[in-house]
Amino acid sequence: MSKNKKKELTLKEYIDGIFSGDRTILSKAITLIESQNPKHRKLSQDIIENCLPKAGNSLRIGITGIPGVGKSTFIECFGMYLADKYNKKIAVLAIDPSSQSSKGSILGDKMRMVHLAGNKNAFIRPTPSSGSLGGVARKTHETVILCEASGFDTILIETMGVGQSEYAVNSMVDFFLLLLIAGAGDEIQGIKKGIMEMADAFVINKADGDNKKNAQLAKKELENALKLFPKKESGCTPKVLTCSSLMKEGIEEVWETIEEYKSNTIKNGYFQKKRKEQSKNWMHETIKESLKNYFYKNPSVINNINEIEKSVIEGKMNSFDAANKLLKIYFDNIN
Amino acid sequence: MSKNKKKELTLKEYIDGIFSGDRTILSKAITLIESQNPKHRKLSQDIIENCLPKAGNSLRIGITGIPGVGKSTFIECFGMYLADKYNKKIAVLAIDPSSQSSKGSILGDKMRMVHLAGNKNAFIRPTPSSGSLGGVARKTHETVILCEASGFDTILIETMGVGQSEYAVNSMVDFFLLLLIAGAGDEIQGIKKGIMEMADAFVINKADGDNKKNAQLAKKELENALKLFPKKESGCTPKVLTCSSLMKEGIEEVWETIEEYKSNTIKNGYFQKKRKEQSKNWMHETIKESLKNYFYKNPSVINNINEIEKSVIEGKMNSFDAANKLLKIYFDNIN
Repeated sequence: MSKNKKKELTLKEYIDGIFSGDRTILSKAITLIESQNPKHRKLSQDIIENCLPKAGNSLRIGITGIPGVGKSTFIECFGMYLADKYNKKIAVLAIDPSSQSSKGSILGDKMRMVHLAGNKNAFIRPTPSSGSLGGVARKTHETVILCEASGFDTILIETMGVGQSEYAVNSMVDFFLLLLIAGAGDEIQGIKKGIMEMADAFVINKADGDNKKNAQLAKKELENALKLFPKKESGCTPKVLTCSSLMKEGIEEVWETIEEYKSNTIKNGYFQKKRKEQSKNWMHETIKESLKNYFYKNPSVINNINEIEKSVIEGKMNSFDAANKLLKIYFDNIN
Repeated sequence: MSKNKKKELTLKEYIDGIFSGDRTILSKAITLIESQNPKHRKLSQDIIENCLPKAGNSLRIGITGIPGVGKSTFIECFGMYLADKYNKKIAVLAIDPSSQSSKGSILGDKMRMVHLAGNKNAFIRPTPSSGSLGGVARKTHETVILCEASGFDTILIETMGVGQSEYAVNSMVDFFLLLLIAGAGDEIQGIKKGIMEMADAFVINKADGDNKKNAQLAKKELENALKLFPKKESGCTPKVLTCSSLMKEGIEEVWETIEEYKSNTIKNGYFQKKRKEQSKNWMHETIKESLKNYFYKNPSVINNINEIEKSVIEGKMNSFDAANKLLKIYFDNIN
């Protein structure tokens, strides 16, 4: 076995490993997808293509909330509950690109969820350490496909809860859950209205001890505020729940709410409709990504790009003229 | 004059208007850039090309901070100060795409800055009402070019302070200012480390009345925290200032800090280096945008896209196969 460690796996080995639920091979395949190295692109695309027929059978849940809301503790508690009580196979992914200056997160995701990381039914994939949001989102979407093909039936995708990542995650999940805490009454204001509008359920976390009363109050306030929100296309009114990840209270109700949503939206057709819309969007994302790849791997572009970049950096050419010059070179030499 | 209102302007009329500082024509040109209509693309690109030689002479300042920090009040106060005291020509732009569900902001930007909006030296451009972050960022960058060609020497670009928009704004400004308020001691934690690392100065706003003491305390805390941050490539250590936009206190110090930064980074070459790096990045952005435009306006793509989209929506084809099919059609019919 050990002599295989450094050997590159073949497509068949990747596929067999993923389909048989081999975590190590699944991890390697995800690393391949995340790789910026153009050499890995063909193989990773072949892996995705092969996984697609087995994908799509999980429930995909987006979980968001501002820092300090207890996302990791909630996901660990929620994941353990589903894994142990319902024998669910849980994959935990994240969509937030980390700090661009410092690269990589200080504490790994597995460190934050020690119990879940040790559960045989769970798979936790650390956050990609860098890249643009669009790139990370696409890779997370592809990771979902691999995880589903590997037998995971519940995918939890975590985001930071503070901006554009939430729109990205909403483009790949069936259910969007917003975690909140009861605070100085300003828990609603701190989050963009657009994110509030996307949520399919609100869960007020840390509803324990002295904080229980505040959480109940926040729940009432939020329920009132939600009356002013536009009706959701799903046909379901977002519920407000309270829970304590610490005391493991209210977790069952969260799962019931998600199950109820799933069953209602499958009945009224919204579940399928959203998935199809998402597929259409991913088609366009794939096109954009491919157009970029074809351009940057074109030999004529490769031969000229350094010199043109240099002209821009030296101020001899503006960025628009430089772009047009490279585009002309590309289209003149496209084969 | 009034019969010209609905007539479309020629390129020359746009350019003459922009160069002579005509606000109405500048606004119209920005609207053209923001337009999603492909018919407007050629003209708007010609306008940008013509403006480029006159662009680049302003100081571009990014201003960010979480909701509630008093960004509008600060920008109004800061802008009025520069306009009145130094006769600066101020353009205020914003980079945040609004709520995707509700489209458009509830309160217009001009409403939030009534005094500055009425100042003859100021130009406030409301936030683009929708679109992806990448798209909005590119359009904001192009708006900067137009504003500079129209004689504005100080460009203030506002963002929400909560996520990816800050990385986008940092790709187009010379100086990045982070607004904070003294709070429960958690004002640092609420903001992503990556954004903290980007800031060239921190300004603790609302340092007035009972809050003055807290602001001083927060300043000290932040100064201590900053000692642990990596050294900045600019060679300048970020300053922490306090100010009161309400009482118009501390505004002068903010400007002095920016001026000092500018003079130091011009001396050590970082100012020019950052601009050149930004140009290089915009070259790549322009390429990506053009590749997309060429694809979607290709007649063969237009003829086939609806049917292929339909296959995806009906589940007859997966998003990857559909993308590849359309790409093949495109490259087979590229002339």
